[in-house]
Amino acid sequence: MTVSMLGLILKKRSGEAHTKTEIDFLVSGIMDGSIPDYQLSAWLMAACWRGMTLQETAYLTDAMCRSGEVLDLSDIGPLFGDKHSTGGVGDKTTLVFVPLLKAAGIPMAKLSGRGLGHTGGTIDKMEAIPGMIVDLPIQKFKEQLADIGMAIGGQTGELAPCDGKIYAMRDVTGTVQSIPLIAASVMSKKLAAGANLIILDVKCGKGAFMETLEDARDLAETMAKVGRILERPVLAVVTDMEQPLGMAVGHTLEVIEAIETLKGKGPADLNQLCMELGAVALVEAKLASNVDEAKAKLSQLIASGEALESFRLLIQKQGGDPRVIDDYSIMPQAKIKQDLFLDEALINDMHLPQGKSRYWIKQLDGKRVAEACKLMGAGRTKKGQSINLAVGVVLAAKVGDHVDAGARLATIYGDSQNDVDQARAKLIEAFTLSPEQVDSPRLIKAVIT
Amino acid sequence: MTVSMLGLILKKRSGEAHTKTEIDFLVSGIMDGSIPDYQLSAWLMAACWRGMTLQETAYLTDAMCRSGEVLDLSDIGPLFGDKHSTGGVGDKTTLVFVPLLKAAGIPMAKLSGRGLGHTGGTIDKMEAIPGMIVDLPIQKFKEQLADIGMAIGGQTGELAPCDGKIYAMRDVTGTVQSIPLIAASVMSKKLAAGANLIILDVKCGKGAFMETLEDARDLAETMAKVGRILERPVLAVVTDMEQPLGMAVGHTLEVIEAIETLKGKGPADLNQLCMELGAVALVEAKLASNVDEAKAKLSQLIASGEALESFRLLIQKQGGDPRVIDDYSIMPQAKIKQDLFLDEALINDMHLPQGKSRYWIKQLDGKRVAEACKLMGAGRTKKGQSINLAVGVVLAAKVGDHVDAGARLATIYGDSQNDVDQARAKLIEAFTLSPEQVDSPRLIKAVIT
Repeated sequence: MTVSMLGLILKKRSGEAHTKTEIDFLVSGIMDGSIPDYQLSAWLMAACWRGMTLQETAYLTDAMCRSGEVLDLSDIGPLFGDKHSTGGVGDKTTLVFVPLLKAAGIPMAKLSGRGLGHTGGTIDKMEAIPGMIVDLPIQKFKEQLADIGMAIGGQTGELAPCDGKIYAMRDVTGTVQSIPLIAASVMSKKLAAGANLIILDVKCGKGAFMETLEDARDLAETMAKVGRILERPVLAVVTDMEQPLGMAVGHTLEVIEAIETLKGKGPADLNQLCMELGAVALVEAKLASNVDEAKAKLSQLIASGEALESFRLLIQKQGGDPRVIDDYSIMPQAKIKQDLFLDEALINDMHLPQGKSRYWIKQLDGKRVAEACKLMGAGRTKKGQSINLAVGVVLAAKVGDHVDAGARLATIYGDSQNDVDQARAKLIEAFTLSPEQVDSPRLIKAVIT
Repeated sequence: MTVSMLGLILKKRSGEAHTKTEIDFLVSGIMDGSIPDYQLSAWLMAACWRGMTLQETAYLTDAMCRSGEVLDLSDIGPLFGDKHSTGGVGDKTTLVFVPLLKAAGIPMAKLSGRGLGHTGGTIDKMEAIPGMIVDLPIQKFKEQLADIGMAIGGQTGELAPCDGKIYAMRDVTGTVQSIPLIAASVMSKKLAAGANLIILDVKCGKGAFMETLEDARDLAETMAKVGRILERPVLAVVTDMEQPLGMAVGHTLEVIEAIETLKGKGPADLNQLCMELGAVALVEAKLASNVDEAKAKLSQLIASGEALESFRLLIQKQGGDPRVIDDYSIMPQAKIKQDLFLDEALINDMHLPQGKSRYWIKQLDGKRVAEACKLMGAGRTKKGQSINLAVGVVLAAKVGDHVDAGARLATIYGDSQNDVDQARAKLIEAFTLSPEQVDSPRLIKAVIT
């Protein structure tokens, strides 16, 4: 049987599964340009319609991974961890997690992306640290791994280039939402990056890639199973991202919060996430016999300062100024710092019953918080755009927390009064308060190992 | 709300119905090239997935119709019929139907296509008549309608050009099979052709566009309802095309069969189809008060020779040689004529029980009969290719008919012995015989008015 793209489309349209030969034909045809865009897009929509089996998803992941350079770290060491999040507002987990896990005995080879949206990605955040080199060439990345057992580099175009081509097409043809396609996209890049212990944080909630717990769990399980088929252990945690992670949103502010977390003074949710993700990784790597033992070990590394020293070493090796650990003022600073109080006017504006002494936060829309930051220059709308690393928002309370009348809801950091005023209006929209007590949401919704 | 193609794709993907504004945006974007092919193909696959409402299908039909010239026949007369078939082997109905209905009082403005496949289309068949002009320019087509109230012209690129663009994309993206898209494609061309009484023959069976009765009935009903929404009466008949229509397949041979039918000596199925289709049209046009009265009227027109004279007039007006009515030898003739007998060797080859005196035809695969003709040059594989009008096959029996041992199954008309031998082998594959009696299939499966 000769394989043709029209044949593949018709097969997928009728709900059949592709063979390895067919998936390899698809990926090589995308790479050499022999498959026209209109056939790729029809196939993508058919794949959204009919889905893909785990075996098909694994074939696609593998073929996309092999479409470019595949990092081989086996000459440096037997074990490398990598952590990936599907993206969330205020997610600075990588900055805590990489030095923490290295300190716990798992070398970490982390390649991160830049942000495109309301706030920057991990690579952007790291640039708030003076001198920090984030665009490590592959050779330098590997040298640093050999040297200190950890590195955070920027994703290069060389890894899984087919994913870039497919993603660009999905983006303009309404085919982004597809669990197997998302799983293959994420996993192909992770596999090409060379790590053999992959830890995934699948965000779930309004505004996240996966809006429902069911979908998020499905994606997490798909990626874990694809990893198993391709013989790379994948651990996944599904976490709530209805609200931002931690208190800080904005580059300098998030680096500060990450360092505070490594000092044992971080916000509860960020700390919990690092502990949970780290614990399953330690158990998988047989560095702890169970999750409780692993968490105790991680807590000890924070209490003893070893995790913090690990971050200092990482900063130093990547050319950053390690004094940042003790002096946050060497990072870009916003010109204006203005508190948002739950004063009488705001209680009125929010249509809350007057005269109560205490209110509870019922909802805190991460997307709106991010939009507030973007209004002050914290995000980019086009690739390559420069962003303001100094500005942002620090929340004073999260969902389930109470705020007394007149107390602080948040602090806004901006470079002009106009920026701050605009951000303030948007930030207020992010909050939904209630005169009745509200429960705190559970951060960790599922753990898939 | 601004309309964007990505928005349309996402809306269709999620199963929502488009507005008139959105469908107009789609069609004008296809026509002016502002919608890239990869977005059109993604939308088409989403439409195959989610379907379209009748109202949406009507919007699409109307917009496609208006994408080019729309024939206005209202200055010539208040009523024009048009007949369309979804295509079948041996379908020469138009050649009988147009002169017959004109004789019955319904002017017929018929635009036909050329065939692309195993045998030619109506236009190709008409070219077997010496001198016949089939590529009538629109102005000439209208003049002839004004003059004699009937014309059969070739479809020009000017009618519903958007359909051509969409069809070309569907053909290469696995999105041909979709009842609303097929309905809009057929109906847009019919509406643009100006007729206001549209009679559709939806073929059903293995090898037809619609393989199941359910799909064929769905398509017929969709087109009838779309016609109603757009205020153009549409009548539809679902007919069996597991086997060829009539006995003759091949251009000259089919013209002969059409003329024989107009002389009252046609095969039962072709005659029945013309009567059924014609009867519903006469009732709709209020030229008969019921179907039985209409059929009697049509039979009378054949018995009296009026239908035949009507065809003679049509041929004459379109430049053809009217002597063909009485002398078939002026049409292209095949060099070799060879009978296929159900002799002992063939009974053996067909693995039939020997020694019986009578067998019944259980199946007769129209596609294989057409392939046999194509082997002798009766079909084209590329647009513009010339075809052999003389060659073909005349069957001696149809499904349900008996054939005595040693009797004739068919006659093959070819231009070389090699062609005939090849066609013979293929033709034999078309037949499935049985030693037990078999019922004749019902030709008319549903009538939708």
